[in-house]
Amino acid sequence: MQLNAPLDMHLHLRDGEMLTRIAKYSAETFSGAIIMPNLVPPVTTKEEVIAYRQRIIQAIGGKTFIPYMTLFFHPSFNKTFLNALRHDITAIKLYPAGITTNSEEGVNGFDIEELRPVLEAMSELEIPLCVHGETNGFVMDREAEFVHIYEKLATAFPKLKIIMEHITTKESVEALDRFDNLYATITLHHLLITLDDVAGGMLQPHLFCKPIAKRPEDREALLNVALRAHPKVMFGSDSAPHPKHAKESCGCAAGIFTAPIALQLLTELFEQHDSLHTLQAFISDNARHIYNIKATPKKIILEKKPFQIPPDYEGVVPMFANKTITYSIKRVIHL
Amino acid sequence: MQLNAPLDMHLHLRDGEMLTRIAKYSAETFSGAIIMPNLVPPVTTKEEVIAYRQRIIQAIGGKTFIPYMTLFFHPSFNKTFLNALRHDITAIKLYPAGITTNSEEGVNGFDIEELRPVLEAMSELEIPLCVHGETNGFVMDREAEFVHIYEKLATAFPKLKIIMEHITTKESVEALDRFDNLYATITLHHLLITLDDVAGGMLQPHLFCKPIAKRPEDREALLNVALRAHPKVMFGSDSAPHPKHAKESCGCAAGIFTAPIALQLLTELFEQHDSLHTLQAFISDNARHIYNIKATPKKIILEKKPFQIPPDYEGVVPMFANKTITYSIKRVIHL
Repeated sequence: MQLNAPLDMHLHLRDGEMLTRIAKYSAETFSGAIIMPNLVPPVTTKEEVIAYRQRIIQAIGGKTFIPYMTLFFHPSFNKTFLNALRHDITAIKLYPAGITTNSEEGVNGFDIEELRPVLEAMSELEIPLCVHGETNGFVMDREAEFVHIYEKLATAFPKLKIIMEHITTKESVEALDRFDNLYATITLHHLLITLDDVAGGMLQPHLFCKPIAKRPEDREALLNVALRAHPKVMFGSDSAPHPKHAKESCGCAAGIFTAPIALQLLTELFEQHDSLHTLQAFISDNARHIYNIKATPKKIILEKKPFQIPPDYEGVVPMFANKTITYSIKRVIHL
Repeated sequence: MQLNAPLDMHLHLRDGEMLTRIAKYSAETFSGAIIMPNLVPPVTTKEEVIAYRQRIIQAIGGKTFIPYMTLFFHPSFNKTFLNALRHDITAIKLYPAGITTNSEEGVNGFDIEELRPVLEAMSELEIPLCVHGETNGFVMDREAEFVHIYEKLATAFPKLKIIMEHITTKESVEALDRFDNLYATITLHHLLITLDDVAGGMLQPHLFCKPIAKRPEDREALLNVALRAHPKVMFGSDSAPHPKHAKESCGCAAGIFTAPIALQLLTELFEQHDSLHTLQAFISDNARHIYNIKATPKKIILEKKPFQIPPDYEGVVPMFANKTITYSIKRVIHL
């Protein structure tokens, strides 16, 4: 199995020591990734974008990997400001305030008129809007409740590309086809697990994430569009490293670390569903069309050979730690 | 506030060192409790019931507290066997196989004809059947899916008192009034929390239990019958101690420890809902009528005085550790 220029369209690389520890795992097997801006403080200026990009490039140590940078959305942005950093960013990420890790500086309420100046400027400058789409409602309903906000945004700004990030519900899947300008990323873990895996047996902190894994019928809906590589969906791992002690404690942080194992597990999953022929589109081609970005000359060769997932990667426990899966990375070819 | 002979109609005291550590907390403020039989191995013989009862009495060290013993249901029981230990037990607890902590020896399938001999013997001997009512379906649906089994049992054995243990859903609440012989216990935690509290923010292992806390409308339905002390519902804490390390780890065990704080929190809750006048029925009178047991001469006086819940009770972390609540135990009176 060969994957050409795989892209991770939703990735948390964090900063400082954690960045140094984990960036290489994405850079090893992906050709690029959309880098989330929810640092503390969030990435909100041209200078911060450029400096963070530099730190990432330093952390990956010469590997062929493009960090596609994003800015943390704020309604106070204006066109002059955005125009000045148009070429430093690939998208802008909008978080409802307080909805997930480091999102306290996000948007309160979704008043279209308040958002209009910056969203119109983004439309004109062709900057996609990536959205963490959850309300502050009941945990199993938050994403479905947000769909009407997606619809409001999609209607009010028809030329704005809106990416529904890490969708987890059938309601979001259904919204995809109702609006030309709605797209979505889907994680690996939401294709593999439901709430049952998180809390149906013992409680599994390493499978705890936001949005939380949902119901079996939601997972089915996600699989349905991912496995046929619906042209409006892309892979985005939402891989989010936390130190082991922060996951295995009272008050466990949200986030699942999948960067080093994503391609192997996706290949296994797509093979199980006789869908290996669509994996290239899901893992790269769709994203390149949606974001209008070029393929990096990098090929990943996978082979059907058992691979035991390590217990941790430098202190960060991956999803399915210690489990043996059927595909391994054989070789990475830089063309 | 004064409570006469409070009863905990669903309690896990465990065994060995844990029993020694925690039995006194129930014995301090309750006058008795239905003791769950899911030890390893489960309590299935007269000798085991008597021996376990003795160990409990030793552990509570002379406090006024009656352990109402139960047997772990097995379809192979017969009338002669049950008749011989009729006076050693108060109820028999049925677990579907593998559904919760130490339930591997439970019932597979619910074939009425297979269960008929023992359930008819229990009807004749007037031994109530306590049931952990969950299927092995999706975690949020397990209890609602089990309601039709409750209905099947209630219809087939109309003289058998069937206690739906630790109910968590509006579906179970609704079933209460459809069958004369269905009763229910309700825990403290299911009156206070929903899945949001467990997994809506950070993941909270000390709020993880089986059945898992459900949706806001389920909690409302439980509150509705508990606060008016519906005559067919009783308090049953399902208090279940686990050592701190077993809760704060990868693969956290299910169970919430509430025994030492249950009366204080129930009083706070009932007061918040202007329902202090029904607490006596919920905490004791209903249970005595349903089980036909006498009140032990023990009164608990509570006072409105801030009480900070300790971080742990001998290594077992209680619900709401470190939180300050409004009611304290003032005095226990042995009449």
